[in-house]
Amino acid sequence: MSDGNLLTGVDPSAPDEAFAALLTLPGVKIERIVSTGQSSPPGFWYDQGWAEWVLVVSGSAGVQFADEPEPRRLTAGDYLYIAPNRRHRVTWTDPDLPTVWLAVHVGEGTL
Amino acid sequence: MSDGNLLTGVDPSAPDEAFAALLTLPGVKIERIVSTGQSSPPGFWYDQGWAEWVLVVSGSAGVQFADEPEPRRLTAGDYLYIAPNRRHRVTWTDPDLPTVWLAVHVGEGTL
Repeated sequence: MSDGNLLTGVDPSAPDEAFAALLTLPGVKIERIVSTGQSSPPGFWYDQGWAEWVLVVSGSAGVQFADEPEPRRLTAGDYLYIAPNRRHRVTWTDPDLPTVWLAVHVGEGTL
Repeated sequence: MSDGNLLTGVDPSAPDEAFAALLTLPGVKIERIVSTGQSSPPGFWYDQGWAEWVLVVSGSAGVQFADEPEPRRLTAGDYLYIAPNRRHRVTWTDPDLPTVWLAVHVGEGTL
């Protein structure tokens, strides 16, 4: 149950996305995700049994829902609710600066 | 279950703190709080039965825990876990620009 700063320890040249759990409680996980240009693999869709709420803290990204025609463009401050089993993928993240996400996962199976 | 941007609709001259629920699920509430210089009344302590995780998105603030000698200074990106029934108060918020908080309340009685 540590305290800290969301923007510290961000490696802008990391080859992979970096995931860090900031808080875990029964049925709830708060996570920081740092993307550095990554996107979901072609044809891959997240399909998770729990609810997720995401906030873009810095950077920008595209999120495609399977039930929408076009991806949404998210920039700093934008937040999005992802209902359980709503299929989605990340179509792009900012190629020039790190995209810091805050994700709140809610429900069984989040841990 | 709306989507939006955390930084829109912020009134920098609001006389009172502004609270907006961004997501409510059983046992979890995600809330935006905008402070414009307010602080907790003298002698007042929050003492709540649920867990809270707060992030300062913009601005700055002081948070005093009853069990610590000095208030903590929080600026943009700083986050803090407040365990259930850990008494705390807000000693100050930025007098010059709005302080936008994201608060995640977890547990019974959050709604």
